[in-house]
Amino acid sequence: MSDLRGLSFIGSSRGAAGARTFRAENPATGEPLEPAYHAATADEVDRAGELASAASEAFGIASGQARGAFLRAIAEELERRAPEILTRAGAESGLPAGRLQGELGRTASQLRLFAGVAEDGTWADVRIERADPNRKPAPKPDLRSMRIPLGPVAVFGASNFPLAFSVAGGDTASALAAGNPVLVKAHPAHPGTSELAGEAIVEAVERCGLPEGTFSLLFDDGFAVAERLVQHSLVRAVGFTGSRSGGEALMRLAAVRRDPIPVYAEMGSVNPVILLPGALEQRGAALAEGLHASFTLGVGQYCTNPGLVLLEAGAVGDAFASALADRTEATPAGTMLTPRIWRAYEGGLERLQSLGATRLARGAPGDGNASGQTSLWQVDGAAVLQSPALLDEVFGPCTLLVRYADARELEAIVRSLEGQLTATIHAAPGEAAANGPLVRLLATKAGRVVFDQFPTGVEVNPAMVHGGPFPATSDGRSTSVGTRAIDRFSRLVAYQNAPNEVLPAELSNAEPGSDPRD
Amino acid sequence: MSDLRGLSFIGSSRGAAGARTFRAENPATGEPLEPAYHAATADEVDRAGELASAASEAFGIASGQARGAFLRAIAEELERRAPEILTRAGAESGLPAGRLQGELGRTASQLRLFAGVAEDGTWADVRIERADPNRKPAPKPDLRSMRIPLGPVAVFGASNFPLAFSVAGGDTASALAAGNPVLVKAHPAHPGTSELAGEAIVEAVERCGLPEGTFSLLFDDGFAVAERLVQHSLVRAVGFTGSRSGGEALMRLAAVRRDPIPVYAEMGSVNPVILLPGALEQRGAALAEGLHASFTLGVGQYCTNPGLVLLEAGAVGDAFASALADRTEATPAGTMLTPRIWRAYEGGLERLQSLGATRLARGAPGDGNASGQTSLWQVDGAAVLQSPALLDEVFGPCTLLVRYADARELEAIVRSLEGQLTATIHAAPGEAAANGPLVRLLATKAGRVVFDQFPTGVEVNPAMVHGGPFPATSDGRSTSVGTRAIDRFSRLVAYQNAPNEVLPAELSNAEPGSDPRD
Repeated sequence: MSDLRGLSFIGSSRGAAGARTFRAENPATGEPLEPAYHAATADEVDRAGELASAASEAFGIASGQARGAFLRAIAEELERRAPEILTRAGAESGLPAGRLQGELGRTASQLRLFAGVAEDGTWADVRIERADPNRKPAPKPDLRSMRIPLGPVAVFGASNFPLAFSVAGGDTASALAAGNPVLVKAHPAHPGTSELAGEAIVEAVERCGLPEGTFSLLFDDGFAVAERLVQHSLVRAVGFTGSRSGGEALMRLAAVRRDPIPVYAEMGSVNPVILLPGALEQRGAALAEGLHASFTLGVGQYCTNPGLVLLEAGAVGDAFASALADRTEATPAGTMLTPRIWRAYEGGLERLQSLGATRLARGAPGDGNASGQTSLWQVDGAAVLQSPALLDEVFGPCTLLVRYADARELEAIVRSLEGQLTATIHAAPGEAAANGPLVRLLATKAGRVVFDQFPTGVEVNPAMVHGGPFPATSDGRSTSVGTRAIDRFSRLVAYQNAPNEVLPAELSNAEPGSDPRD
Repeated sequence: MSDLRGLSFIGSSRGAAGARTFRAENPATGEPLEPAYHAATADEVDRAGELASAASEAFGIASGQARGAFLRAIAEELERRAPEILTRAGAESGLPAGRLQGELGRTASQLRLFAGVAEDGTWADVRIERADPNRKPAPKPDLRSMRIPLGPVAVFGASNFPLAFSVAGGDTASALAAGNPVLVKAHPAHPGTSELAGEAIVEAVERCGLPEGTFSLLFDDGFAVAERLVQHSLVRAVGFTGSRSGGEALMRLAAVRRDPIPVYAEMGSVNPVILLPGALEQRGAALAEGLHASFTLGVGQYCTNPGLVLLEAGAVGDAFASALADRTEATPAGTMLTPRIWRAYEGGLERLQSLGATRLARGAPGDGNASGQTSLWQVDGAAVLQSPALLDEVFGPCTLLVRYADARELEAIVRSLEGQLTATIHAAPGEAAANGPLVRLLATKAGRVVFDQFPTGVEVNPAMVHGGPFPATSDGRSTSVGTRAIDRFSRLVAYQNAPNEVLPAELSNAEPGSDPRD
């Protein structure tokens, strides 16, 4: 750890020791972690923006091979620092070693996946319409178009994935893959992990001979750097994973710019799970086991945590609830990411209670500093329709059983849901097909509809959609996981009647000297 | 014309005769045109929104074949009404018969182009990742994803294309092709043309047996219907072509919704044309002829009108300016679309003058009601850098020559430009390639970069990009012309481990009875 300096990366230089500092804290012990981190100054943010904009001119036209090599170099540099990264991330996040090991592997493979996307080039959607000088009534011009990078992208690290959704995570990987310089605002809960990952990227920038502004990393435990970044005239897009209030604040800042820019904020959701009567009848005990594992995974700190479970009132559902309560009671407490997140969790539980939900069970109490106690809640369907605040996310290891009266009430509740990252349905054979309108309704509410499995695992592959209508994300057209995430950081440009030599390689004729205009 | 009723289409019903009415006006004569048009009431907007949302459930899952047939039926119904439409559009817009004939043809072929896109289905970006139960450390789930429609789309008709960018224009065609019901707010300058086109669509809805809320058409000459539409909880996206102030007003309304929705506003631009020294030297007279034809086309009322021409100070440029001035002086006046647009044009010219531009020439004065007099202006490069307001669009038959001192000043001016729909460069052979950085800079500023041609023709084909960074459009990632326009009105959804029977046809296994989960 002796290498950590607590200073931002402004391109390849380090930030100055500014006036304001903060330290990470070990959430398990409350102990502050060295070194002190210096918040980036306004001048440093501006300098990073200018470097990024200048870098954009060269990096924006680097070949797919060059971008791919860069992403692979980042993966290698991360892996080379694995021991330090895993130790520091464990201390800063309270996450267990196995989980962090897996997350580092996922982060490196994600970088390599996007390297492949950059090298393959299909994402750029190249289209070539050749000229037809004899077309009537007017000649047809040569027209060629493709996706190109937007320019500097500001990325905000997430608290709950210190690696896979942070400095070298999916937003950074996809923005770089498309050819955009990236300015990361590190999450203040894990500045040391961020500094190590940032060092890996800066090292890769140098190894690959890319312009230094291709990447910068800014520290801050307040909102000043975020505000300046999102309003910076040279920043062209924003990627964020975090809370709804944080995401909405960035959306507002971007919308009031002189030139509004896209904000891709993934703001989590309550991820409804519907247990249809046939499924409960057939495999209630297995469902209780699966659901328990899913909502307590990682102390419930997943965007895709199943926080709302819809099942019919009656004896079969009661047996399920009772089995789930037994498992809940046997659950040990777990250290949450930060004391602040733990306090917000406790506040969310108080809100559930004040809105009339009943606590069915709770797990073992914790004795640590930010120790999250698992809990299981229940309410009837009518209450949810009357108090929609019961449908708001509580981030942490709890879930709310909603006991609906009949299919009609179930549909009304599903209609009342806001946008979701995921929606899950468990059904007996044939039961999902018999509920076609319900399935179609779920597809209008969520980015991913899951059948007979649980939503917490998010595959990283070409078919993944980790998105969903507002407020699950700020832009329900997109996904922040999977290869399509690259589309977010690009725009279309067409060249009409261009001489072959000025066309980007992807659009030009293969034969040297050939001219589209001939 | 006796069939025109002056009432909105609320699905297949007609709106009531409301309190407020307005009439179209023949811009050439100032004569009001019958009948009176009744502004839609708030209740009618809400009813249209509810019908659209209900229609969305069936229309949103209609097959590509069904959507294609519907778009083809609209094209046929439009063509069947061609004589009435052309007569009324001529009276309402002052546009010549030949131009309107061409625009009707373009509108019909655009509908058929999107029919083909819907039938082909490639736009939906279907991706299938099959399960691998043996994958370590965890089994891989079956995951299938595609683009689906967003839901009801509000479309605003444009003044300058009463057919191709209005009721049955590109926004409507692309939104319907993706499976979204459409609510059009007719432009008040051509309500009769709008009613006839709306009737054609309503007829096609009925012929094709689609739910009635698939299409509605709302009249209003104020802002109340627009405001209610954009803030309507059931409306999921907005398409607009028009002025910057109009587009920005819609963007603001959408951004402050409880659930912000995408706004695709095409707001025009000044479309810079760079005449490099070699091109001027080689073919100055031909360039003067071509530029004159382009900036006076349709009385200058194109979003892609070349309103800014950059050429070096000095004798060669002077000769070009003089040739262009001669052509300008010989140009007859033309009727503009509305008296309001004519007044705004006159105001724009006064602004140029007050900012220090010199009028080099003007065409014949008009004697009509809204008669636009062509004019040619000039200013030096330093003035433009000092008064960026000189770079604002003046909608109408004028252009501003900017005489830059040297290549360095040219670059500074181009850097200072806001986002553009198009940027054009005229060069001698090899001269564009010798100006690589300038060409690359133009690609960061515009949606389409044109070489040795003029920007006013906009091809409708798979490679077209009619978009560009803000403020040319509200969303520089997209295009409003060409097949990619369909992407705007869709979002991604994934199905994980879904039984074959509940999957959309595009995602399901071909063999009946086969299940992705086996």
